[in-house]
Parts: sequence; C-alpha cells; structure tokens
Amino acid sequence: MTAAASALGRPARFISLEGGEGAGKSTVLAALRAALEARGETVVCTREPGGTPLAERIRGLLLQADGDAPTPPAELLLMFAARAQLVSTVIAPALARGDWVLSDRFTDASHVYQGAARGGDAALIETLERRVVGIEPAMTLLLDVPVAVGRARIAGRGAPDRIEAEHDAFFDTVRGAYLARATQHAERFRVVDASRPADEVAEAAVAHLRAHLEAMG
Amino acid sequence: MTAAASALGRPARFISLEGGEGAGKSTVLAALRAALEARGETVVCTREPGGTPLAERIRGLLLQADGDAPTPPAELLLMFAARAQLVSTVIAPALARGDWVLSDRFTDASHVYQGAARGGDAALIETLERRVVGIEPAMTLLLDVPVAVGRARIAGRGAPDRIEAEHDAFFDTVRGAYLARATQHAERFRVVDASRPADEVAEAAVAHLRAHLEAMG
Ligand SMILES: Nc1ncnc2c1ncn2[C@@H]1O[C@H](COP(=O)(O)OP(=O)(O)O)[C@@H](O)[C@H]1O
Ligand SMILES: Nc1ncnc2c1ncn2[C@@H]1O[C@H](COP(=O)(O)OP(=O)(O)O)[C@@H](O)[C@H]1O
Ligand SMILES: [Mg+2]
Ligand SMILES: [Mg+2]
Repeated sequence: MTAAASALGRPARFISLEGGEGAGKSTVLAALRAALEARGETVVCTREPGGTPLAERIRGLLLQADGDAPTPPAELLLMFAARAQLVSTVIAPALARGDWVLSDRFTDASHVYQGAARGGDAALIETLERRVVGIEPAMTLLLDVPVAVGRARIAGRGAPDRIEAEHDAFFDTVRGAYLARATQHAERFRVVDASRPADEVAEAAVAHLRAHLEAMG
Repeated sequence: MTAAASALGRPARFISLEGGEGAGKSTVLAALRAALEARGETVVCTREPGGTPLAERIRGLLLQADGDAPTPPAELLLMFAARAQLVSTVIAPALARGDWVLSDRFTDASHVYQGAARGGDAALIETLERRVVGIEPAMTLLLDVPVAVGRARIAGRGAPDRIEAEHDAFFDTVRGAYLARATQHAERFRVVDASRPADEVAEAAVAHLRAHLEAMG
C-alpha cells in the first residue's frame, strides 16, 4: 500500500464488488444484501458508473457506442465526475446514517479499465482518488473468471455497449490488472473463484462478509 | 508564471475570450473571426463547455437547473472532460492544419469559476490543466464589465441556467478573479474595457489581434 492510498478513509460498512462482465457481481451483490438485511442492517446498493440521476446520465455518455465517443482522458474524467457525485450524494450520507453500502464497482475499476487497460495516466488516477473520492471500501470482493466464461454468461444480453464491445485481449488485460491490484492491496481485496456455480460463489462471498463482520467486532 | 504553467504548449493561432455573462464575448468573437477571414485565414470557432457533440451533452448536464445538480468536484471534472474532448477532437486537429482557433472561454474559466468562485481545489485544477489539457492560448482577451452592466445586457435572454442563476456576489468574485488572473499571466492576457459601446470594444479587440499578428511576424 502506498502512502497516498493509506490517506484514504476506509469506512467499515463500505464494500465493493469488482470483476469483468458476467463475473457475477450483480448476483453476489444480491446475496450480500440479503445476508446483511437478515441481520437487521439497512443496505444501500449502488453501481458504477451511475447510482445518482446525474451519474446515470454520465453513464449514458460513457457507454454510447456511436458518434463522438469519449477519448481516454475524457472517459477517465467522466468516470470520476460520476463517482464524485455518487460519493457526495449517496455513499457518504448512507455511511453517515450507519447504513451499509454495497457498490457494484468502485475506484479500482478506474485503475484497471482507464489505467492499466487503456494506458491512462496512473498518477492522475491516484490524484483524483485522493483529492476527489477520498474513501475506499473496507473490503473489495474480486470475482475472478476466465474472460470466455464471463462472455458466455452474458451472451444473451443484447447489443454490447461501447466497453463490452472491446476484444478479448482487452478483457484479458483487465483480468490480469484486477489480479495484480488484489495482490498490491491484499489487506482489502478478497479474490473469489467465480467460475464455480452461482450458489458456491455466493456462499464464498458471504463467508468473507462474515469474517469482515467478526473483525469489526 | 509558475513552472507548471510554463510547461503548457501555447500555439500562436489559439486565442480565447473570457469574461462574465453579457461581457460581449460572442460579439467580439465574431469581429475577430471576420478580421482573420478578411486576411484569408481559416477560423474554427468554439465555445466552452461544449464544441463537440459529446461536450455539448456534458454542457447540458452542467447547466441543468433542476434535480441532481453536480457537486463542485463533479462540476470541475465534467468541465475538464468536455475540455479534454474538445482539445483532442477539435482544437488540436485545427491547429495542426494551420487553422486559427477562437474559443469562447477556455481553462482560465475553470480557474475562475470552479476554482476561485466555488472554492475548488486549485492544485487539482493545475494538475488537470497540465496533464489533460496540455495547451493554453497564445492570447486571452478578458472582456471586463461591471456585473450589473453584463446582467442588463442579457436580461432579455429568458430563464437563466444553473450558473447564470447565481447571485451578484458570486459574479463579483468571478470578475475579481479574472482580473487577478490577468495580472498573474500578464504576458498572455489583454484586458479590454468592455463597458464601452460594442463597436469600440470590437475595435480594441481587433487591435490586440493585429499586435499579436505582428509579433508572430
Ligand atoms: N457463478 C455463476 N455461474 C453461472 N452463471 C452465473 C454465475 N453468476 C452469475 N451467473 C449468471 O451470469 C449472468 C451474469 O451475472 P451477473 O451477476 O449479472 O454478472 P455481472 O454483474 O458481473 O456482469 C447472469 O445471467 C447470472 O444469472
Ligand atoms: N459593448 C457592448 N455594449 C452594449 N451591448 C453589447 C456590447 N457587447 C455585446 N452587447 C450585447 O449584449 C448582449 C450580450 O453580448 P454577448 O456578446 O452575447 O456576451 P457574452 O457572449 O459575453 O455573454 C448581446 O445582446 C449583445 O448584442
Ligand atoms: Mg452486473
Ligand atoms: Mg456568449
């Protein structure tokens, strides 16, 4: 962990899910939500980019496949604009109330997609994380699957958006960058083998949640 | 001029216009364009935020007065996302062709509005200018008018957008911040007293353009 990363707040009730398309993030998110609600907790679920009306409109700009597609630096700044809005208007208020926040992707996705996979400016991403986002999840579950497995799972979803339309080499880079990040931030990441059946993956994720709850005391 | 600012490219054919609402930027831009075209130059006119299809959609998000208004950091990043897109897809290609570029506002507006007036993170703005924008105009004309004069000129324009709806104290801060910036970057800024009649203001602006053309040789 770098000095910069250690300056980020890390609220105990804030968990993110990461992984490629079709890894099972939405499925696991529902399982974690159910486990927390069964304990009487209030849970706010969100997704990135998006999660507020403005951020969902920014998501629309990011994923449009036609016309004036954002250049890599514009994509990076749009992602962080949506994230800034999400943190100020949804995540921070929820955590301040004592709610849990489960986010389908968070800043790790920018390090991986806009940074490693698109060759973006890693130092700028760290600066934006530190100065604009200011927090990171207490626990990040990385759902790891071979690219072809994830692709097969979402094959029926209809026309791919601008990012889904990338080639396999791009997603192999994404997968490798996620695994590298999990190693660099091992205190926060939990890697789940998400190629197993959905109930086993959910069970592994809920076991990590239980361990986290015990560590919170 | 700081070391950071001196690292920016400053293409000779790139001019920006700055000033509050109703200062006369659009009017002067038309006069500069006509003066350049009369010399046989090709001129690309643009405006900020906007100037590309994506950037105009970002402008729409920035200026909407209702609902989930962008927080100050989100506003800052949306501005720079639009600017990044504008520079890569419009301004840099035009300058590479040898065309002139006249921009109705550029990065100075972020230093003034998102920085000084909204108390945004000045160091972050400098970082974004350096790492994402990379260029500054060779000449910036600051059209300076008392706030009340500018307001009176645009009184008939219809419902104000989110930024136009700010109070006079905000625009007084904007005016002061523009004048301070013109002093700090005196080698690039030319301040025009824009409270005079439109033809005199245009004449002063065109005189600055002539001087710039002479300096270019
Ligand atoms: N472990 C799994 N094994 C097989 N199919 C799965 C598994 N997890 C999720 N799915 C299915 O794969 C598809 C993509 O899952 P989803 O949770 O939406 O992934 P993501 O949100 O990561 O894109 C869904 O149809 C889901 O029901
Ligand atoms: N120097 C001036 N004196 C009086 N009216 C002016 C002057 N310059 C512009 N105007 C008028 O004021 C209004 C605002 O001018 P405009 O060029 O659109 O300003 P801006 O682009 O800075 O908001 C327009 O109706 C314009 O015709
Ligand atoms: Mg999903
Ligand atoms: Mg105008």
